[in-house]
Amino acid sequence: MAEVKLVGFWSSPFVHRVIWALKFKGIRYEYIEEDRYNKSELLLQSNPLHKKVPVLIHGGKAIAESLVILEYIEETWPQNPLLPKDNHQRALARFWIKFGEDSVFHLLSSTNQNFLYEEERASARKKAQETIMVMEEQGLGEKKFFGGNNISMVDIAYGCLSHWLEGLEEIVGMKLIEENKFPRLHAWTQNFKQVPIIKENLPDYGKLLIHLQKRRQEYVT
Amino acid sequence: MAEVKLVGFWSSPFVHRVIWALKFKGIRYEYIEEDRYNKSELLLQSNPLHKKVPVLIHGGKAIAESLVILEYIEETWPQNPLLPKDNHQRALARFWIKFGEDSVFHLLSSTNQNFLYEEERASARKKAQETIMVMEEQGLGEKKFFGGNNISMVDIAYGCLSHWLEGLEEIVGMKLIEENKFPRLHAWTQNFKQVPIIKENLPDYGKLLIHLQKRRQEYVT
Repeated sequence: MAEVKLVGFWSSPFVHRVIWALKFKGIRYEYIEEDRYNKSELLLQSNPLHKKVPVLIHGGKAIAESLVILEYIEETWPQNPLLPKDNHQRALARFWIKFGEDSVFHLLSSTNQNFLYEEERASARKKAQETIMVMEEQGLGEKKFFGGNNISMVDIAYGCLSHWLEGLEEIVGMKLIEENKFPRLHAWTQNFKQVPIIKENLPDYGKLLIHLQKRRQEYVT
Repeated sequence: MAEVKLVGFWSSPFVHRVIWALKFKGIRYEYIEEDRYNKSELLLQSNPLHKKVPVLIHGGKAIAESLVILEYIEETWPQNPLLPKDNHQRALARFWIKFGEDSVFHLLSSTNQNFLYEEERASARKKAQETIMVMEEQGLGEKKFFGGNNISMVDIAYGCLSHWLEGLEEIVGMKLIEENKFPRLHAWTQNFKQVPIIKENLPDYGKLLIHLQKRRQEYVT
């Protein structure tokens, strides 16, 4: 089997998407930690356009963009599938991945930025919770995971709603996925972290809090 | 074969992505024109979240989001493939599709809006042309089409850079894909429209101009 390398950064939820997928597939890989403030030649050469992690290098060929990498992993190592076999179900999974991509990270970054200012808190929370309601009612529904009984590519794509969002909520001092308002999505955030491969591959929470706090201060200054 | 229906709107480049893909695959379908200002029950039921076209209905099951539909079409009807066979090449195609999704339509809508005001023209043009340069040099390169000698899912995804952007450029009175600055991408816009299936399935240019002009006025008022 050709050599697999992952260029990442320890706190990135995008990088963790790839880590989780590789672990689920049982693929051995070399992890290369990137320096955010002094990017390596390897990163600049392998993702010249965005210069961002994650980058997966397989047999010397580089792939960037976490969701593109997930599709590649699924196609290259079909064991333990992350997408349903049925084409219509696959399309629905990709629909929710796209919804997440268009909203989840925007939700996180805007949460972090908007909640800096007291006067913006209420409207930012309202908007974020409208998105969360769609995920709760239409995306997750009655299922344990977005993928059903087991986690899927959708769950992996939404992974930052667990752990990372919890860290932001703690820093900001405001709960977004409130247990009483969003009981199913709240349960998901807990169930997700209990899946062994996820649990064993999460950044240290204390260290993550310090990092998120530092990033938040960068917005202010 | 199960019945295929496409809910669309005549001027939408997103809908045309699906039309072109279905035509390439040789799939017969019923086209249902949507009323933008009085959305049908069929649309509201089949895409309750976004309430937007295109929606593909295959055997009674609906799929929304043009790029999700393209992947579905490719998986369901593998003849005349729109993605390369090689996994790494497929990943590169999806990388460029994602780049387009993150930039092309933003480029179009911001072009339309920013160029309304004289003082924003120069900076909006500069920013748009930086994106165009990436497409020219890194995306298209020396190839005739993004897909190589033949058009691919990437070309279909970028289709609005031909025809629609030309219409906007005419309305705005400013060329973005200038032939002398971007000779390869400019040639692509012309070559793309000459592919028979594209040529035979484009909205009427005069009618499109009137429509784009009308949309533009909606931003002002």
